[in-house]
Amino acid sequence: MPPQKVCVVGSGNWGSAIAKIVGFNAEEKPELFDREVRMWVFEEKVNGRNLTEIINTDHENVKYLKGIKLPQKVVAVPDVLEAAKAADIFIFVLPHQFVRGICEKLKGNIKSTAVAVTLIKGFEVAEGGGIRLISDVIRSILNIPVAALMGANIANEVAQENYCEATIGCRDMALGQKLKAVFQTKYFRIVCVQDEITVEVCGALKNVVATAAGFTDGLGFGDNTKAAVIRLGLMEMIKFCEVFYPGSKLETFFESCGIADLITTCYGGRNRKVAEAFAKTGKPLLQLEKEMLDGQKLQGVPTAAEINYMLKAKKMEERFPLFTAVHKICLGELKVDKMLDCLRNHPEHM
Amino acid sequence: MPPQKVCVVGSGNWGSAIAKIVGFNAEEKPELFDREVRMWVFEEKVNGRNLTEIINTDHENVKYLKGIKLPQKVVAVPDVLEAAKAADIFIFVLPHQFVRGICEKLKGNIKSTAVAVTLIKGFEVAEGGGIRLISDVIRSILNIPVAALMGANIANEVAQENYCEATIGCRDMALGQKLKAVFQTKYFRIVCVQDEITVEVCGALKNVVATAAGFTDGLGFGDNTKAAVIRLGLMEMIKFCEVFYPGSKLETFFESCGIADLITTCYGGRNRKVAEAFAKTGKPLLQLEKEMLDGQKLQGVPTAAEINYMLKAKKMEERFPLFTAVHKICLGELKVDKMLDCLRNHPEHM
Repeated sequence: MPPQKVCVVGSGNWGSAIAKIVGFNAEEKPELFDREVRMWVFEEKVNGRNLTEIINTDHENVKYLKGIKLPQKVVAVPDVLEAAKAADIFIFVLPHQFVRGICEKLKGNIKSTAVAVTLIKGFEVAEGGGIRLISDVIRSILNIPVAALMGANIANEVAQENYCEATIGCRDMALGQKLKAVFQTKYFRIVCVQDEITVEVCGALKNVVATAAGFTDGLGFGDNTKAAVIRLGLMEMIKFCEVFYPGSKLETFFESCGIADLITTCYGGRNRKVAEAFAKTGKPLLQLEKEMLDGQKLQGVPTAAEINYMLKAKKMEERFPLFTAVHKICLGELKVDKMLDCLRNHPEHM
Repeated sequence: MPPQKVCVVGSGNWGSAIAKIVGFNAEEKPELFDREVRMWVFEEKVNGRNLTEIINTDHENVKYLKGIKLPQKVVAVPDVLEAAKAADIFIFVLPHQFVRGICEKLKGNIKSTAVAVTLIKGFEVAEGGGIRLISDVIRSILNIPVAALMGANIANEVAQENYCEATIGCRDMALGQKLKAVFQTKYFRIVCVQDEITVEVCGALKNVVATAAGFTDGLGFGDNTKAAVIRLGLMEMIKFCEVFYPGSKLETFFESCGIADLITTCYGGRNRKVAEAFAKTGKPLLQLEKEMLDGQKLQGVPTAAEINYMLKAKKMEERFPLFTAVHKICLGELKVDKMLDCLRNHPEHM
């Protein structure tokens, strides 16, 4: 097989950190990869210069990953078709709301043999309600295999080469190993599993659990209570996958995409922080989002709403008391200090 | 069945918190339990008075659980045979080094139909080396069934009635349900599993992982790295049970005794704290233990040594790089800043 061309679709904080890794591996493994890695960059002006020009001249994304040098052969390209031309491996790492539009542009303009991996945590709202996986959106438009890479990966820490792990979910094991070669470095350690849907679903559901963990922090409960909330949240994540994505494997929740990412999100993370402030101050969540997140969005609130839609349709709200309580609290239908009462007769304790 | 008499063997911080729960349930469920709950108290003087007299008059263990009222029918008894007389259910909750001596005293002086549950986190060093479970010590001396109750249970938080969970491991399901009735309250939620050995082993092994997590904190790595260390530690806990206690179930690690207790111990907990100080200051661990723990002991260090003994005997040190690295760091054979290098080729990443 000739060396594969890799294209990174997206250039935010996480996209740039990943471009650093992929560019490094492309240089290290010329037998596997083309040395040039193209990165699609949404063009914008930074101090009067085009961001693509800054990246291609100074080898640094000064706007989204300041202070980190990118490999010289990571080339920023403002036109997505130009970036994607001849690419064999697509890495999707852009805000989820732009995925559909970008895929529509790419449709018919990429190699039919190409493959993709999504690093996007989030989902699309399905027609009528409920969640639709980003991998599914990409697959349905481009008609190529789509894997998922998720894990406890705060972009800046990865860019600083701190040791961490990630999980690749890929039904096709041979493709999984090929993707592993794209991403694994001495400090970024990869485990491949075939249970690709669970890998991706974990990345969406964890934010609902982190919202509950934040409420617990804000109410002033201690470590025991928080550990119980995180654990019950994890049990509901597992049950949710069992119900809506049959075939999901218990082992997958032990991977970085599962417990590791969940722990990180429930102890750090913006959903936890805003939920804590909500429980402490009583200010509306949307107001706190504006005050505290500097333009970033809370993911736990819409996720709780969409999964509640799915649970309601199956009349299963009572089987998921934590997910249900978080949604009701976000809606204002339940006082936050009543959350734990909803967990006293959790199905796990029957 | 006539109402069962419950005896709490031990009256420290955790023993007193549990006596509060058990005493409450004994009053609430007179059809199941004798209202009087005897608690064996190692007699000592507090401000010139006997501790048993203080507990029986003021209904408070002023030395080990200050500020918490115990139910009136929790009766402190200084003679363990007197406390144990006619008891149907024994709750062992004393420092592990006293278990053998107390059991030897009880031997031949208890009902042959009695049952026991251990709440003791720790183990005995087996003859020659390696760990021996406390339940096994009790069972072998008293010849009665012994279950285990473990979980993310900081005693003071439980005593304050903060919501939390615990796991009962009990091979005999009917006995498990009986024990659940002893412990479960509105705020102390119990899950029973049959995999009793795993429940107990988790309580010992978690301290090795918490030591590694503390080193990571002290070295100044961020959330990603810590999440990876906790996850790899958990994977080694699972593997350790597979190798040394065949029949262990993956599901058990999702219970409070597993991930919940592990998370709490890796974020709070004294093993984590001292390990962090060690990585920061370079002072010997034993000196830090004295300076920081006010007479309490580090459990991670001896546990790492004993499990290393077991791994060495099976020539399996390389399969457990985290456990092995912690032990070598404690011995001074490996510099703490080399710990993560030992995890770069973890078997999980193969």
